[in-house]
Amino acid sequence: MVDTILQKAQTAFLSYKRINGKEKARFLRAIADEIENLGPNLIEVIAQETHLSESRIVSERSRTTGHCRMFASLVEEGSWVEARWDTALPNRTPTPQPDIRKMLHPLGPVVVFGAANFPLAYSTAGGDTASALAAGCPVVVKGHPAHPATSAMVAQAIDQAARHTGMPEGVFQHVSGGIEIGQALVAHPLTRAVGFTGSLAGGKALFDLAQQRPVPIPVFAEMSSINPVILLPTSLQTNPELPAKALAASLTTGMGQFCTCPGLVMGVRSAGLDQFIDHYLRAVQSVAPGPMLHSGIAENYYQRVHQTVTATKVTNLLPANPRGNPLHGHPGVAMVAAADFLMTPSLQEEVFGPFALVVICEDRHELTQVISHLPGQLTCTLWGEEAEIQQYSGWLNLLMEKAGRLIINGVPTGVEVCPSMQHGGPFPATTDARFTAVGPDAIKRFVRPIAYQNFPDSLLPAELQPHNPLGIWRIKDGQWGKD
Amino acid sequence: MVDTILQKAQTAFLSYKRINGKEKARFLRAIADEIENLGPNLIEVIAQETHLSESRIVSERSRTTGHCRMFASLVEEGSWVEARWDTALPNRTPTPQPDIRKMLHPLGPVVVFGAANFPLAYSTAGGDTASALAAGCPVVVKGHPAHPATSAMVAQAIDQAARHTGMPEGVFQHVSGGIEIGQALVAHPLTRAVGFTGSLAGGKALFDLAQQRPVPIPVFAEMSSINPVILLPTSLQTNPELPAKALAASLTTGMGQFCTCPGLVMGVRSAGLDQFIDHYLRAVQSVAPGPMLHSGIAENYYQRVHQTVTATKVTNLLPANPRGNPLHGHPGVAMVAAADFLMTPSLQEEVFGPFALVVICEDRHELTQVISHLPGQLTCTLWGEEAEIQQYSGWLNLLMEKAGRLIINGVPTGVEVCPSMQHGGPFPATTDARFTAVGPDAIKRFVRPIAYQNFPDSLLPAELQPHNPLGIWRIKDGQWGKD
Repeated sequence: MVDTILQKAQTAFLSYKRINGKEKARFLRAIADEIENLGPNLIEVIAQETHLSESRIVSERSRTTGHCRMFASLVEEGSWVEARWDTALPNRTPTPQPDIRKMLHPLGPVVVFGAANFPLAYSTAGGDTASALAAGCPVVVKGHPAHPATSAMVAQAIDQAARHTGMPEGVFQHVSGGIEIGQALVAHPLTRAVGFTGSLAGGKALFDLAQQRPVPIPVFAEMSSINPVILLPTSLQTNPELPAKALAASLTTGMGQFCTCPGLVMGVRSAGLDQFIDHYLRAVQSVAPGPMLHSGIAENYYQRVHQTVTATKVTNLLPANPRGNPLHGHPGVAMVAAADFLMTPSLQEEVFGPFALVVICEDRHELTQVISHLPGQLTCTLWGEEAEIQQYSGWLNLLMEKAGRLIINGVPTGVEVCPSMQHGGPFPATTDARFTAVGPDAIKRFVRPIAYQNFPDSLLPAELQPHNPLGIWRIKDGQWGKD
Repeated sequence: MVDTILQKAQTAFLSYKRINGKEKARFLRAIADEIENLGPNLIEVIAQETHLSESRIVSERSRTTGHCRMFASLVEEGSWVEARWDTALPNRTPTPQPDIRKMLHPLGPVVVFGAANFPLAYSTAGGDTASALAAGCPVVVKGHPAHPATSAMVAQAIDQAARHTGMPEGVFQHVSGGIEIGQALVAHPLTRAVGFTGSLAGGKALFDLAQQRPVPIPVFAEMSSINPVILLPTSLQTNPELPAKALAASLTTGMGQFCTCPGLVMGVRSAGLDQFIDHYLRAVQSVAPGPMLHSGIAENYYQRVHQTVTATKVTNLLPANPRGNPLHGHPGVAMVAAADFLMTPSLQEEVFGPFALVVICEDRHELTQVISHLPGQLTCTLWGEEAEIQQYSGWLNLLMEKAGRLIINGVPTGVEVCPSMQHGGPFPATTDARFTAVGPDAIKRFVRPIAYQNFPDSLLPAELQPHNPLGIWRIKDGQWGKD
């Protein structure tokens, strides 16, 4: 089965890769339209399968149709291909320089593994699928087993969009099945890249498999992040309630089931920090328990919380307790001294859900130590006043090495879909910090440059034609412009 | 030892990464100056260690100083950081959009393995070193054992340049030693990326090691390519002598010791192809034997030629024969029918040196089959007339999937160092076809984006300041410009 799927994807690739940006844009917009056309039926199915609230689903739907349309605009405009043109220098000595032009081209069939926590935005028509299709890569989605009906409905919408806009058969395929099918998709010789959002164990296993192929392929896996928050003294002195409320809301929104959930908070022991903790616990405590995505995630949450709060010298400040409904998530907060945190590596592992660990440092030196020992993250957040952050700019310098996105006096949840977004970070946050899963630059994961030397104009893509018929930004003889 | 080296590199990194583009440019230009200051002494040492001709060494030196100055100009100008800025939308509903800005930052310490065949341009101060230093990454070079004195001299020049321009100690380090040292450098937790130019076996082993680390790191290894050339019927009918002479010169220049050496030539059986072969053999035969880089390379060359010409049904058209001097390379040409070529995978493996295999196809269909079966390449070349290539555009479509650079009516050797160059291709040509080893874009291998959310201006790098003090190209609110 997997071979038939990839053969079909490869056949589609050889024609889809030549389809121009305007047509790909029509396809991507049609996907957005078809998802909207599914109407309240889709909302109901998702609510049944994921227990997410209607408002959350509606907002995730507009995020999903939003990124489909964003990639449509990107490929319609066309400058994303990074066109470069060095004109010939026939009189150069000792040897003439030939005419060379270059642009980005799609890699080939991409296999996408959707996430449990975003049944729309990081799933069947999620950011990986949309960016790969925008790049010119056929996509094979392995539907997430936690929301099979949702995945099938969205897959039908994409199929419909492909048919209506005359895309080649096989440009999108949807597969259900277990781990074996997923592994076979990654291992197939015609697969050219993989997009994954999920657990560290799952992502790392697929990454390893892809690197051990006779022909290794790129895997962008977004896996694990505890999104540390550092509270500086002045911000705690002046108004500890402000970060406390903001971080409590960020921790508990969507029952903490976000890859950017702030699961680690740290500061130097002080009256301000005590006040912060009071406010924080009060704010977290006020959040009513609510359903998690599915029972497996809830079970795993309570198990991981249990492991954490029963670790040596961890104080359970706000016990997470399902209170009779095993599907319900209940926020939890624990506390540990920095010295103990540093000695217990397991405390640095992600607890997926609304749980935060507060790390108490004795002084700035110890805070620096904790920061230094952090593994790679999607985000790091700093609460403090401008002058203080400037004074201790060494922290910022260190934090840069830990994360893909740095936030000051804000919260990591709420990932904007925009050109400046970096949703990716050093391992284990992702498998390759050089790429992002969100925003237009996500397309770069699935493309490679091809240079054309001494080509007659008639054989070049429109993007590289002399008179720039698409009006895109290019670098010609070293200069940016639209000439 | 390796630990001390990487600790030093990491310490250097924390200050070097903050050094601005103008200062890095001074450093890179000083490297070029110091290499030139080594004068005739360097030329002599290289000639002794590599047996390359003086003219070749002089031209490789200017290529090397040229790329140092090219990267200097790139980082001085500054637009390479891909700055993006999305301004805040405080009134957006339901949630305001925060201010987010993004740019590329260096990965950290980079380990570079130089190549035997380019003692300057792909070695100690080669393209990997220059691009990593330009990015802001400290570099540890493992000197190539085939030219230790050259490597040490260039390393001293770089050290001198670093001192003269006030760079942090440890920004560049040079290590000699065997495979174990190389492996330890790649395995060290502070190493953040690897650049390699060399054999498939060596590159793949380092790639595997890097992917099996607890924290995998990117390896860009440029390894193996036979650079296929496809001769179309019309070009053979009209003037078979033209491609014959050009390809013979390309095959034998520098005794074929280039990664872009055209080692595979193919066409459809015809009178024109016979004429081409006559001209080709005559031109190749007229090249006098000459010294190869070192005896190990010469030995390996004759061994690989022997393996190839003794394979089933291969005809040895022009035997390669050292003629008494085991260091001397002698060009060789063999011929095989496409059907036999397709059945013998070893014939698709690189023979490093001036050896070419001519594949005779019975018809266009068989030619298509041979192209389809090719592994990844740095380059593919097509000789033919415009109308004919257009008519059989399916070939071009197929060739795109095989290589990083396509050439029409030209030769693959002579890799221009310019923005449009793509020196990289699908595995096994390189380990990641999404990057290039040559040209300004080579810097992208060693950087990753960092996003800054809600940062006060005073804490942002100059590249992201509101009034664009560096005057670089940026994408602000989705629009390209220098605002």
